[in-house]
Amino acid sequence: MNSELIALIQSVQPADAAAMTRARTRQAQLTKPAGALGDLEELAARLAGVFGTEKPHPRGVAVLVAAGDHGVAASGVSAYPPEVTPAMVANFLADTPAGPGGAAVNAIARTVGARVYVMDAGVNADLLDHPALIRASVRRGTRDLRLETAMTVDETEGLILAGAAVARQAIEDGADLIIPGEMGIGNTTPAAALTARLLNVDAAQVTGRGTGVDDATLARKLAAVQQALARTSTTDPLTVLAEFGGFEIAAMLGMMLQAAALRRAVVLDGFVEGSAALVGMALTPALRDFLFPAGECAEIGHAAQLSALDLKPMFKLGLRLGEGTGGVLAAPLILAAAATLREMRTFEEAGVPGGA
Amino acid sequence: MNSELIALIQSVQPADAAAMTRARTRQAQLTKPAGALGDLEELAARLAGVFGTEKPHPRGVAVLVAAGDHGVAASGVSAYPPEVTPAMVANFLADTPAGPGGAAVNAIARTVGARVYVMDAGVNADLLDHPALIRASVRRGTRDLRLETAMTVDETEGLILAGAAVARQAIEDGADLIIPGEMGIGNTTPAAALTARLLNVDAAQVTGRGTGVDDATLARKLAAVQQALARTSTTDPLTVLAEFGGFEIAAMLGMMLQAAALRRAVVLDGFVEGSAALVGMALTPALRDFLFPAGECAEIGHAAQLSALDLKPMFKLGLRLGEGTGGVLAAPLILAAAATLREMRTFEEAGVPGGA
Repeated sequence: MNSELIALIQSVQPADAAAMTRARTRQAQLTKPAGALGDLEELAARLAGVFGTEKPHPRGVAVLVAAGDHGVAASGVSAYPPEVTPAMVANFLADTPAGPGGAAVNAIARTVGARVYVMDAGVNADLLDHPALIRASVRRGTRDLRLETAMTVDETEGLILAGAAVARQAIEDGADLIIPGEMGIGNTTPAAALTARLLNVDAAQVTGRGTGVDDATLARKLAAVQQALARTSTTDPLTVLAEFGGFEIAAMLGMMLQAAALRRAVVLDGFVEGSAALVGMALTPALRDFLFPAGECAEIGHAAQLSALDLKPMFKLGLRLGEGTGGVLAAPLILAAAATLREMRTFEEAGVPGGA
Repeated sequence: MNSELIALIQSVQPADAAAMTRARTRQAQLTKPAGALGDLEELAARLAGVFGTEKPHPRGVAVLVAAGDHGVAASGVSAYPPEVTPAMVANFLADTPAGPGGAAVNAIARTVGARVYVMDAGVNADLLDHPALIRASVRRGTRDLRLETAMTVDETEGLILAGAAVARQAIEDGADLIIPGEMGIGNTTPAAALTARLLNVDAAQVTGRGTGVDDATLARKLAAVQQALARTSTTDPLTVLAEFGGFEIAAMLGMMLQAAALRRAVVLDGFVEGSAALVGMALTPALRDFLFPAGECAEIGHAAQLSALDLKPMFKLGLRLGEGTGGVLAAPLILAAAATLREMRTFEEAGVPGGA
C-alpha cells in the first residue's frame, strides 16, 4: 500500500473519551429534564469526543461532491443515461439567479451557508473549465465491474488521496463538518457489491432501485452485482473497492479518513456514502467515532449499513437523491446539538430548582 | 364569543391550491429523479400553498415561548416543582456569554438565527422586569382542572388574542415561520385532558410521563386527567380549553390562528402544542393547511394527535423538552424544502437529459 495512504489511515485515532465523559457530566447539569433532548444528547456527547472539548463549537459546513462514471452504466442498470453525470456536474457549477449551482445540493446548501466543492473524480466526458471544479480524474469512468477489476490499485489509492486533499482544503477553508456527496449514474451498483461483500450478505438484500429503476432494470442491476461478486472472492477492503469501484466512492473514503484524521465530524448522507464508510471502517475501526449518519435513505441496504456501523440516523425522510443532500439537511441538527452542550446554562448557573 | 376572536377564526382561509398545483408541476421538472427528495417534496408543495407561490421563500424564523402555571401542579403531577416555571422564564431571558438566554431553545435558536419571544401568559410569580418579556398574564396560574373550570371564558379568549398579538408582532418583525413554544410545569396534564376529550379517547392513551415522572406520579397524573374529564362532558372546543387550561395553551392557539390568518407557516413542536392545534382544528379546519409538525416527540399521545391532524412529522428524535425546541430544529428542513422548489433548475434549464 502507498505509504502516504498508510500514514493517512494510521492518523485516524479514536475520539477523545475524556471529553465525552465531561460532556455527559455537563449534560446532566443543564437546565432541562434528564434525557429530554433525546438523541441530540448522544449526538452532542459524540461531538465532544470529535472536537476534544465538552463545549464543542463546530462552525463551517462543507459538502464535497465527487462525480464519477461507471463502466457498468452502459449496460442499463440505472433509470438515467450516463450522460447525466457530466450534465449534473455542470449543474452543480452553473450560475443561477439564486447563486452558484442549480442542483438540490446547491439550493439546500445555501439555506445553511454550506460551501459546495465539486470534484471530477472520473467523469466520462470533457468537462468545461470552471474555476470551482476540482480536477482529480485519472480515467473516464471505471471498467465494467461485471467483467473485470473496476479500478487498478494505483487508481484506487490515487483517488482516495485526492479525496483526502479536497477534505484538507475544505478544512483549511474553515469546515468543521465534512459532508461527502456523490454523483455518478450507476453508482448504487458498485455500492451494492461493496456492501454485500463487506457485510457478507446476499446481493438481493442490498441491491435497490437507486434513482427509481423499474423491475426489469432492477433485475439487470441485481444480476450485475451478482456477476461482480462471483468474479472475485477477495475480502481485503482496498482490493474490494478496486474490484467494484468507483472513483467517487474512493474519493469519499479519502474525505472521511482525512476529516477523521484532522478530528472533524463527517456527516454521512446515503447508501453510496455508506459503502465508502464500510471500506473505511474495515481499514480503521476508529473512523466510526467521526461518522454522523444523517438520515436513513430510501435505498434498501442502507439500514444494513447503519446497523453494521452501529449508528442511529437522525431522520427518515425517504430521500434517495445523493449529492450529499441528506448530509446538508442534517447539519443544522448537529450544530444545534453542539450548541445545547456549549451554550445552555446549568441548574446552578440559572438558579433553577430541580437539578440532579 | 368575543367578536375579535370570531373575526380571527374567520380570517383563517385554506391554502392556495393553485399554487400547490403549480409547485407540483414544477417539482416534476426539477433536476432530480422524481420523488428523490422524499418527504421534502410534499413539504415544499404545502409551503407553496401557504405562501401562495410555486417559489416560496420563507425567511425569518421566530419561536414564541408562552409560559403559564397550572393549579393542578401543586398536587404533584410533575417531576419538577411549580417554581421551575418562573425560573425558566428568567433563564430564557438571561444574559449569557453566548447571547440572550441560557435554555435549550435559546441555544438552538441561535444556531438558525431564530428570534425568541418570551411571553408571560400566566406564571404564578412576580417576574422581574425585562425589556424582552411580553406581559400578558391575567391570572397567576390556572385553577385546578380536577376541581373546577381552569380558566373563565374571558380569560381564555383574552389569552388567545394575546397570543395572536405576539404572532402579529413576530410577523411584523419579519418572521415567516412561527414556532409556538411553551413552558409550564404540569402542562402535559391539561394537554392530555384536551387531547382525550377532543379525540374522544381514554385518558390512559394520551397521558404520559411528561418531563419524566415516576410510576406513582404518573398514576396521580392519570387520576387528575380522569377526574377533570369526569367533571365536565363539554365538547365545544373553546369550552373544553377553558375547562382544562392552560393559559400558555390558549396563547399558542392564538399564535397559530394569527399566523395562519396572515398566511405564515406554523411549525408544531410537541404534545402541548399539539393540544392547542387540536382546539384550533376544531374551531376552523382550514388551520391544518398552515401546520407543519416538527418531530414526533417521546410523549405518548403525540402520535394520536399527529394522526388526527393527518400530518407526518419530519423526525423522531425522542425529544420531550418543549419550549418549541423541536420546532426550531425542524425549521432548517422547512427552509431547505422551500429552497429546492425555488432555486433548483429544471431539466430544460440545465440541459440535463432524462426529464419527464
